[in-house]
Amino acid sequence: MKTYRKELWFNTDKRRQFINITPLLEDCLAESGIKEGLCLANAMHITASIFINDDEPGLHHDFESWLEKLAPEKPHSQYRHNGLEDNADAHLKRTIMGREVVVAVTAGKFDFGPWEQIFYGEFDGKRKKRVLVKIIGE
Amino acid sequence: MKTYRKELWFNTDKRRQFINITPLLEDCLAESGIKEGLCLANAMHITASIFINDDEPGLHHDFESWLEKLAPEKPHSQYRHNGLEDNADAHLKRTIMGREVVVAVTAGKFDFGPWEQIFYGEFDGKRKKRVLVKIIGE
Amino acid sequence: MKTYRKELWFNTDKRRQFINITPLLEDCLAESGIKEGLCLANAMHITASIFINDDEPGLHHDFESWLEKLAPEKPHSQYRHNGLEDNADAHLKRTIMGREVVVAVTAGKFDFGPWEQIFYGEFDGKRKKRVLVKIIGE
Repeated sequence: MKTYRKELWFNTDKRRQFINITPLLEDCLAESGIKEGLCLANAMHITASIFINDDEPGLHHDFESWLEKLAPEKPHSQYRHNGLEDNADAHLKRTIMGREVVVAVTAGKFDFGPWEQIFYGEFDGKRKKRVLVKIIGE
Repeated sequence: MKTYRKELWFNTDKRRQFINITPLLEDCLAESGIKEGLCLANAMHITASIFINDDEPGLHHDFESWLEKLAPEKPHSQYRHNGLEDNADAHLKRTIMGREVVVAVTAGKFDFGPWEQIFYGEFDGKRKKRVLVKIIGE
Repeated sequence: MKTYRKELWFNTDKRRQFINITPLLEDCLAESGIKEGLCLANAMHITASIFINDDEPGLHHDFESWLEKLAPEKPHSQYRHNGLEDNADAHLKRTIMGREVVVAVTAGKFDFGPWEQIFYGEFDGKRKKRVLVKIIGE
Protein backbone atom coordinates (compact mmCIF):
# COMPACT_ATOMS: atom_id res chain seq x y z
CA MET A 1 0.00 0.00 0.00
CA LYS A 2 1.21 3.50 -0.83
CA THR A 3 0.27 6.64 1.06
CA TYR A 4 0.69 10.29 0.15
CA ARG A 5 0.21 13.46 2.23
CA LYS A 6 0.28 17.13 1.36
CA GLU A 7 -0.91 20.41 2.87
CA LEU A 8 -2.28 23.13 0.61
CA TRP A 9 -2.34 26.70 1.95
CA PHE A 10 -4.94 29.38 1.18
CA ASN A 11 -5.33 33.02 2.15
CA THR A 12 -8.52 34.50 0.72
CA ASP A 13 -9.13 38.21 0.06
CA LYS A 14 -12.71 37.97 1.29
CA ARG A 15 -14.31 36.63 4.46
CA ARG A 16 -16.26 34.13 2.36
CA GLN A 17 -14.94 32.68 -0.88
CA PHE A 18 -15.04 29.50 -2.94
CA ILE A 19 -11.89 28.30 -4.73
CA ASN A 20 -11.83 25.48 -7.29
CA ILE A 21 -8.92 23.33 -6.07
CA THR A 22 -9.39 20.47 -8.55
CA PRO A 23 -6.20 21.26 -10.52
CA LEU A 24 -4.13 21.43 -7.30
CA LEU A 25 -5.51 18.07 -6.19
CA GLU A 26 -4.83 16.55 -9.61
CA ASP A 27 -1.19 17.63 -9.21
CA CYS A 28 -1.12 15.89 -5.81
CA LEU A 29 -2.55 12.72 -7.32
CA ALA A 30 0.03 12.71 -10.13
CA GLU A 31 2.82 13.30 -7.60
CA SER A 32 1.58 10.42 -5.45
CA GLY A 33 1.90 7.87 -8.24
CA ILE A 34 -1.21 6.14 -6.86
CA LYS A 35 -3.40 4.54 -9.53
CA GLU A 36 -6.17 2.83 -7.51
CA GLY A 37 -7.43 3.93 -4.10
CA LEU A 38 -9.13 6.72 -2.17
CA CYS A 39 -8.27 10.39 -1.78
CA LEU A 40 -9.36 12.30 1.32
CA ALA A 41 -9.33 16.10 1.13
CA ASN A 42 -10.36 17.96 4.28
CA ALA A 43 -10.25 21.47 5.63
CA MET A 44 -7.84 21.50 8.59
CA HIS A 45 -9.70 24.48 10.05
CA ILE A 46 -13.17 24.34 11.50
CA THR A 47 -14.54 27.40 9.73
CA ALA A 48 -13.78 26.12 6.23
CA SER A 49 -15.09 23.35 4.02
CA ILE A 50 -14.17 21.02 1.20
CA PHE A 51 -17.11 20.18 -1.02
CA ILE A 52 -17.94 18.98 -4.51
CA ASN A 53 -20.32 20.81 -6.76
CA ASP A 54 -20.56 22.71 -10.04
CA ASP A 55 -18.12 25.48 -11.03
CA GLU A 56 -20.86 27.95 -11.95
CA PRO A 57 -20.77 31.52 -10.58
CA GLY A 58 -24.57 31.86 -10.39
CA LEU A 59 -24.74 28.75 -8.22
CA HIS A 60 -21.95 30.03 -6.00
CA HIS A 61 -23.91 33.23 -5.50
CA ASP A 62 -26.95 31.12 -4.58
CA PHE A 63 -24.86 29.16 -2.04
CA GLU A 64 -23.71 32.42 -0.43
CA SER A 65 -27.28 33.82 -0.13
CA TRP A 66 -28.65 30.51 1.10
CA LEU A 67 -25.97 30.02 3.76
CA GLU A 68 -26.52 33.60 4.95
CA LYS A 69 -30.22 32.78 5.29
CA LEU A 70 -29.65 29.51 7.19
CA ALA A 71 -26.80 30.78 9.37
CA PRO A 72 -26.55 34.58 9.18
CA GLU A 73 -23.27 36.24 10.12
CA LYS A 74 -24.88 39.27 11.80
CA PRO A 75 -25.74 40.36 14.38
CA HIS A 76 -22.60 38.80 15.83
CA SER A 77 -24.21 38.99 19.27
CA GLN A 78 -26.82 36.34 18.39
CA TYR A 79 -24.18 33.62 18.94
CA ARG A 80 -22.72 32.71 22.32
CA HIS A 81 -19.44 31.69 20.63
CA ASN A 82 -18.92 35.31 19.60
CA GLY A 83 -17.13 37.35 22.24
CA LEU A 84 -13.46 37.42 21.51
CA GLU A 85 -14.43 35.85 18.17
CA ASP A 86 -16.99 36.88 15.51
CA ASN A 87 -17.04 33.69 13.46
CA ALA A 88 -19.76 31.46 14.96
CA ASP A 89 -21.67 31.66 11.68
CA ALA A 90 -18.62 30.28 9.86
CA HIS A 91 -18.67 27.15 12.04
CA LEU A 92 -22.34 26.63 11.15
CA LYS A 93 -21.92 27.35 7.44
CA ARG A 94 -19.01 24.91 7.20
CA THR A 95 -21.20 22.28 8.89
CA ILE A 96 -23.80 22.60 6.12
CA MET A 97 -21.15 22.44 3.38
CA GLY A 98 -19.10 19.64 4.98
CA ARG A 99 -15.55 19.26 6.28
CA GLU A 100 -14.27 16.73 3.78
CA VAL A 101 -14.71 14.74 0.61
CA VAL A 102 -13.51 11.25 -0.24
CA VAL A 103 -12.93 10.72 -3.96
CA ALA A 104 -12.24 7.43 -5.73
CA VAL A 105 -8.98 7.12 -7.66
CA THR A 106 -9.25 4.87 -10.73
CA ALA A 107 -6.55 4.33 -13.35
CA GLY A 108 -4.55 7.23 -11.89
CA LYS A 109 -7.39 9.79 -12.17
CA PHE A 110 -10.13 11.15 -9.92
CA ASP A 111 -13.19 9.11 -10.77
CA PHE A 112 -15.54 12.05 -11.31
CA GLY A 113 -19.00 12.43 -12.75
CA PRO A 114 -19.43 14.93 -15.61
CA TRP A 115 -19.63 18.15 -13.53
CA GLU A 116 -17.89 17.27 -10.27
CA GLN A 117 -15.30 19.83 -9.16
CA ILE A 118 -13.70 20.10 -5.72
CA PHE A 119 -13.93 23.41 -3.88
CA TYR A 120 -12.32 24.99 -0.87
CA GLY A 121 -15.08 26.90 0.91
CA GLU A 122 -13.79 29.67 3.14
CA PHE A 123 -16.20 31.20 5.68
CA ASP A 124 -13.75 33.16 7.87
CA GLY A 125 -10.92 34.15 5.60
CA LYS A 126 -8.27 36.83 5.22
CA ARG A 127 -5.80 34.59 7.03
CA LYS A 128 -3.60 31.61 6.14
CA LYS A 129 -5.43 28.30 6.40
CA ARG A 130 -4.73 24.76 5.27
CA VAL A 131 -6.27 21.82 3.43
CA LEU A 132 -5.00 18.28 4.00
CA VAL A 133 -4.72 15.83 1.10
CA LYS A 134 -4.21 12.17 2.00
CA ILE A 135 -4.23 9.48 -0.69
CA ILE A 136 -3.99 5.75 -0.01
CA GLY A 137 -3.87 2.93 -2.52
CA GLU A 138 -1.39 1.43 -4.90
CA MET B 1 -4.68 -4.53 -1.65
CA LYS B 2 -7.75 -5.20 -3.79
CA THR B 3 -9.90 -2.52 -5.40
CA TYR B 4 -13.34 -2.73 -6.99
CA ARG B 5 -15.29 -0.20 -9.06
CA LYS B 6 -18.82 -0.16 -10.41
CA GLU B 7 -21.31 2.38 -11.73
CA LEU B 8 -25.00 2.02 -10.90
CA TRP B 9 -27.53 3.79 -13.12
CA PHE B 10 -30.83 5.32 -12.05
CA ASN B 11 -33.66 7.05 -13.88
CA THR B 12 -36.40 8.16 -11.52
CA ASP B 13 -40.04 8.78 -12.46
CA LYS B 14 -40.25 11.82 -10.23
CA ARG B 15 -38.15 14.96 -9.86
CA ARG B 16 -37.40 14.01 -6.26
CA GLN B 17 -37.20 10.41 -5.08
CA PHE B 18 -35.37 8.23 -2.57
CA ILE B 19 -34.28 4.71 -3.55
CA ASN B 20 -32.93 2.13 -1.10
CA ILE B 21 -29.79 0.88 -2.86
CA THR B 22 -28.51 -1.33 -0.03
CA PRO B 23 -29.20 -4.61 -1.89
CA LEU B 24 -27.42 -3.34 -5.03
CA LEU B 25 -24.41 -2.32 -2.95
CA GLU B 26 -24.39 -5.70 -1.17
CA ASP B 27 -24.20 -7.34 -4.60
CA CYS B 28 -21.20 -5.13 -5.44
CA LEU B 29 -19.50 -6.07 -2.18
CA ALA B 30 -20.03 -9.79 -2.81
CA GLU B 31 -18.71 -9.40 -6.38
CA SER B 32 -15.62 -7.57 -5.11
CA GLY B 33 -14.53 -10.45 -2.88
CA ILE B 34 -13.26 -7.86 -0.37
CA LYS B 35 -13.61 -8.94 3.26
CA GLU B 36 -12.01 -6.06 5.19
CA GLY B 37 -11.82 -2.44 4.06
CA LEU B 38 -13.82 0.64 3.15
CA CYS B 39 -16.61 1.18 0.62
CA LEU B 40 -17.20 4.62 -0.88
CA ALA B 41 -20.56 5.24 -2.56
CA ASN B 42 -21.07 8.67 -4.13
CA ALA B 43 -23.48 10.36 -6.45
CA MET B 44 -21.61 11.18 -9.67
CA HIS B 45 -24.04 14.04 -10.33
CA ILE B 46 -24.19 17.23 -8.31
CA THR B 47 -27.95 17.29 -7.86
CA ALA B 48 -28.17 13.87 -6.22
CA SER B 49 -27.08 12.39 -2.92
CA ILE B 50 -26.03 9.18 -1.23
CA PHE B 51 -27.05 9.09 2.42
CA ILE B 52 -27.72 6.63 5.22
CA ASN B 53 -30.92 6.68 7.24
CA ASP B 54 -34.03 4.70 8.04
CA ASP B 55 -36.21 3.02 5.38
CA GLU B 56 -39.45 4.46 6.74
CA PRO B 57 -41.93 6.18 4.38
CA GLY B 58 -43.12 8.68 7.01
CA LEU B 59 -39.55 9.83 7.56
CA HIS B 60 -38.96 10.14 3.82
CA HIS B 61 -42.02 12.35 3.59
CA ASP B 62 -40.60 14.46 6.44
CA PHE B 63 -37.26 14.77 4.59
CA GLU B 64 -39.09 15.98 1.46
CA SER B 65 -41.10 18.64 3.36
CA TRP B 66 -38.08 19.73 5.36
CA LEU B 67 -35.81 20.09 2.33
CA GLU B 68 -38.52 22.07 0.53
CA LYS B 69 -38.65 24.39 3.55
CA LEU B 70 -34.85 24.84 3.75
CA ALA B 71 -34.26 25.08 -0.01
CA PRO B 72 -37.56 25.55 -1.86
CA GLU B 73 -37.72 24.65 -5.53
CA LYS B 74 -40.01 27.53 -6.52
CA PRO B 75 -40.09 30.27 -7.57
CA HIS B 76 -37.28 29.18 -9.88
CA SER B 77 -36.39 32.84 -10.37
CA GLN B 78 -35.16 33.19 -6.76
CA TYR B 79 -31.89 31.48 -7.76
CA ARG B 80 -29.26 33.03 -10.01
CA HIS B 81 -28.25 29.55 -11.24
CA ASN B 82 -31.69 29.17 -12.81
CA GLY B 83 -31.83 30.58 -16.32
CA LEU B 84 -31.25 27.83 -18.80
CA GLU B 85 -31.59 25.50 -15.77
CA ASP B 86 -34.29 25.18 -13.10
CA ASN B 87 -32.42 22.97 -10.63
CA ALA B 88 -30.58 25.30 -8.24
CA ASP B 89 -32.68 23.96 -5.36
CA ALA B 90 -31.47 20.44 -6.18
CA HIS B 91 -27.83 21.52 -5.70
CA LEU B 92 -28.75 22.94 -2.27
CA LYS B 93 -30.85 19.95 -1.20
CA ARG B 94 -28.08 17.54 -2.14
CA THR B 95 -25.65 19.61 -0.07
CA ILE B 96 -27.82 19.09 3.02
CA MET B 97 -28.16 15.35 2.37
CA GLY B 98 -24.52 14.80 1.38
CA ARG B 99 -22.69 13.57 -1.73
CA GLU B 100 -21.25 10.36 -0.36
CA VAL B 101 -21.01 7.78 2.38
CA VAL B 102 -18.06 5.70 3.48
CA VAL B 103 -19.05 2.37 5.01
CA ALA B 104 -16.80 -0.09 6.84
CA VAL B 105 -16.49 -3.60 5.42
CA THR B 106 -15.95 -6.27 8.08
CA ALA B 107 -15.91 -10.05 7.51
CA GLY B 108 -17.28 -9.54 3.99
CA LYS B 109 -20.35 -7.51 5.08
CA PHE B 110 -21.26 -3.85 5.47
CA ASP B 111 -20.66 -3.07 9.13
CA PHE B 112 -24.05 -1.48 9.78
CA GLY B 113 -25.91 -0.43 12.88
CA PRO B 114 -29.41 -1.89 13.37
CA TRP B 115 -31.34 0.49 11.07
CA GLU B 116 -28.74 1.79 8.65
CA GLN B 117 -29.77 1.62 5.00
CA ILE B 118 -28.11 3.37 2.06
CA PHE B 119 -30.24 5.61 -0.17
CA TYR B 120 -29.87 7.28 -3.50
CA GLY B 121 -31.47 10.70 -3.13
CA GLU B 122 -32.57 12.21 -6.41
CA PHE B 123 -33.43 15.93 -6.49
CA ASP B 124 -33.53 16.56 -10.25
CA GLY B 125 -34.63 13.31 -11.79
CA LYS B 126 -36.41 11.96 -14.86
CA ARG B 127 -33.03 11.43 -16.53
CA LYS B 128 -30.27 8.81 -16.39
CA LYS B 129 -27.78 9.43 -13.60
CA ARG B 130 -25.03 7.41 -11.96
CA VAL B 131 -23.69 6.32 -8.60
CA LEU B 132 -20.06 5.28 -8.18
CA VAL B 133 -19.12 2.38 -5.91
CA LYS B 134 -15.44 2.00 -5.00
CA ILE B 135 -14.28 -0.58 -2.51
CA ILE B 136 -10.71 -0.97 -1.28
CA GLY B 137 -9.32 -3.56 1.11
CA GLU B 138 -8.40 -7.20 1.04
CA MET C 1 -2.73 -3.87 4.76
CA LYS C 2 -3.89 -3.84 8.38
CA THR C 3 -7.45 -3.25 9.52
CA TYR C 4 -8.85 -2.46 12.95
CA ARG C 5 -12.45 -2.38 14.23
CA LYS C 6 -13.98 -1.29 17.49
CA GLU C 7 -17.40 -0.31 18.81
CA LEU C 8 -17.70 2.48 21.36
CA TRP C 9 -20.87 2.65 23.48
CA PHE C 10 -22.59 5.78 24.77
CA ASN C 11 -25.60 6.41 26.95
CA THR C 12 -26.25 10.11 27.43
CA ASP C 13 -28.13 11.70 30.33
CA LYS C 14 -29.87 14.18 28.04
CA ARG C 15 -31.85 13.82 24.84
CA ARG C 16 -29.29 15.97 23.03
CA GLN C 17 -25.64 16.05 24.00
CA PHE C 18 -22.18 16.44 22.45
CA ILE C 19 -19.29 14.30 23.71
CA ASN C 20 -15.65 14.86 22.74
CA ILE C 21 -14.51 11.36 21.78
CA THR C 22 -11.04 12.32 20.51
CA PRO C 23 -9.20 10.63 23.42
CA LEU C 24 -11.19 7.40 22.94
CA LEU C 25 -10.37 7.41 19.24
CA GLU C 26 -6.69 8.09 19.96
CA ASP C 27 -6.69 4.98 22.17
CA CYS C 28 -8.18 2.98 19.27
CA LEU C 29 -5.51 4.28 16.91
CA ALA C 30 -2.71 3.35 19.32
CA GLU C 31 -4.24 -0.11 19.81
CA SER C 32 -4.46 -0.62 16.03
CA GLY C 33 -0.74 -0.13 15.50
CA ILE C 34 -1.56 1.56 12.18
CA LYS C 35 0.85 4.38 11.24
CA GLU C 36 -0.38 5.48 7.79
CA GLY C 37 -3.93 5.21 6.52
CA LEU C 38 -7.52 6.36 7.03
CA CYS C 39 -9.80 6.18 10.05
CA LEU C 40 -13.58 6.07 9.62
CA ALA C 41 -15.72 6.92 12.65
CA ASN C 42 -19.49 6.73 12.18
CA ALA C 43 -22.58 6.71 14.30
CA MET C 44 -24.20 3.27 13.99
CA HIS C 45 -27.60 4.81 14.81
CA ILE C 46 -29.50 7.10 12.52
CA THR C 47 -30.37 9.73 15.13
CA ALA C 48 -26.75 10.43 16.10
CA SER C 49 -23.76 12.02 14.43
CA ILE C 50 -19.99 12.05 14.34
CA PHE C 51 -18.59 15.45 13.45
CA ILE C 52 -15.44 17.52 13.79
CA ASN C 53 -15.46 21.01 15.23
CA ASP C 54 -14.21 23.12 18.14
CA ASP C 55 -14.48 22.02 21.78
CA GLU C 56 -15.99 25.32 22.95
CA PRO C 57 -19.15 25.34 25.11
CA GLY C 58 -20.49 28.60 23.63
CA LEU C 59 -20.30 27.11 20.15
CA HIS C 60 -22.02 23.92 21.29
CA HIS C 61 -24.84 26.04 22.70
CA ASP C 62 -25.06 27.80 19.33
CA PHE C 63 -25.24 24.44 17.53
CA GLU C 64 -28.12 23.36 19.80
CA SER C 65 -30.13 26.57 19.20
CA TRP C 66 -29.42 26.53 15.49
CA LEU C 67 -30.44 22.90 15.01
CA GLU C 68 -33.63 23.54 16.98
CA LYS C 69 -34.36 26.42 14.61
CA LEU C 70 -33.67 24.38 11.44
CA ALA C 71 -35.35 21.15 12.64
CA PRO C 72 -37.43 21.80 15.77
CA GLU C 73 -38.27 18.89 18.02
CA LYS C 74 -41.78 20.08 18.86
CA PRO C 75 -44.61 19.88 18.16
CA HIS C 76 -43.92 16.18 17.62
CA SER C 77 -47.06 16.01 15.47
CA GLN C 78 -45.49 18.15 12.72
CA TYR C 79 -43.59 15.06 11.49
CA ARG C 80 -45.21 12.06 9.84
CA HIS C 81 -42.45 9.79 11.25
CA ASN C 82 -43.73 10.55 14.75
CA GLY C 83 -46.48 8.20 15.85
CA LEU C 84 -45.01 5.38 17.81
CA GLU C 85 -41.80 7.45 17.75
CA ASP C 86 -41.07 11.08 18.70
CA ASN C 87 -37.60 11.44 17.16
CA ALA C 88 -38.12 12.63 13.57
CA ASP C 89 -36.28 15.85 14.45
CA ALA C 90 -33.26 13.77 15.53
CA HIS C 91 -33.03 12.18 12.07
CA LEU C 92 -33.02 15.66 10.52
CA LYS C 93 -30.53 17.14 12.98
CA ARG C 94 -28.13 14.27 12.45
CA THR C 95 -28.40 14.82 8.69
CA ILE C 96 -27.17 18.41 9.12
CA MET C 97 -24.32 17.36 11.42
CA GLY C 98 -23.31 14.29 9.39
CA ARG C 99 -23.12 10.54 10.01
CA GLU C 100 -19.37 10.09 9.78
CA VAL C 101 -15.89 11.53 9.54
CA VAL C 102 -12.85 10.18 7.73
CA VAL C 103 -9.58 11.28 9.31
CA ALA C 104 -6.09 10.83 7.90
CA VAL C 105 -3.58 8.85 9.95
CA THR C 106 0.02 10.05 9.54
CA ALA C 107 3.04 8.81 11.52
CA GLY C 108 0.72 7.00 13.93
CA LYS C 109 -1.36 10.11 14.81
CA PHE C 110 -4.60 11.70 13.63
CA ASP C 111 -3.55 14.32 11.13
CA PHE C 112 -5.52 17.20 12.64
CA GLY C 113 -5.56 20.93 12.11
CA PRO C 114 -5.04 23.11 15.20
CA TRP C 115 -8.58 22.99 16.64
CA GLU C 116 -10.05 19.81 15.19
CA GLN C 117 -11.75 17.58 17.76
CA ILE C 118 -14.10 14.66 17.06
CA PHE C 119 -17.54 14.68 18.66
CA TYR C 120 -20.33 12.23 19.16
CA GLY C 121 -23.54 14.17 18.63
CA GLU C 122 -26.55 12.58 20.29
CA PHE C 123 -30.03 13.80 19.25
CA ASP C 124 -32.21 11.08 20.78
CA GLY C 125 -30.35 9.89 23.84
CA LYS C 126 -30.99 8.32 27.22
CA ARG C 127 -30.36 4.87 25.70
CA LYS C 128 -27.32 2.80 24.75
CA LYS C 129 -26.00 3.58 21.29
CA ARG C 130 -22.83 2.78 19.38
CA VAL C 131 -20.08 4.36 17.30
CA LEU C 132 -18.04 2.29 14.86
CA VAL C 133 -14.31 2.89 14.44
CA LYS C 134 -12.64 1.30 11.42
CA ILE C 135 -9.01 2.00 10.59
CA ILE C 136 -7.22 0.73 7.50
CA GLY C 137 -3.59 1.22 6.53
CA GLU C 138 -0.23 -0.12 7.55
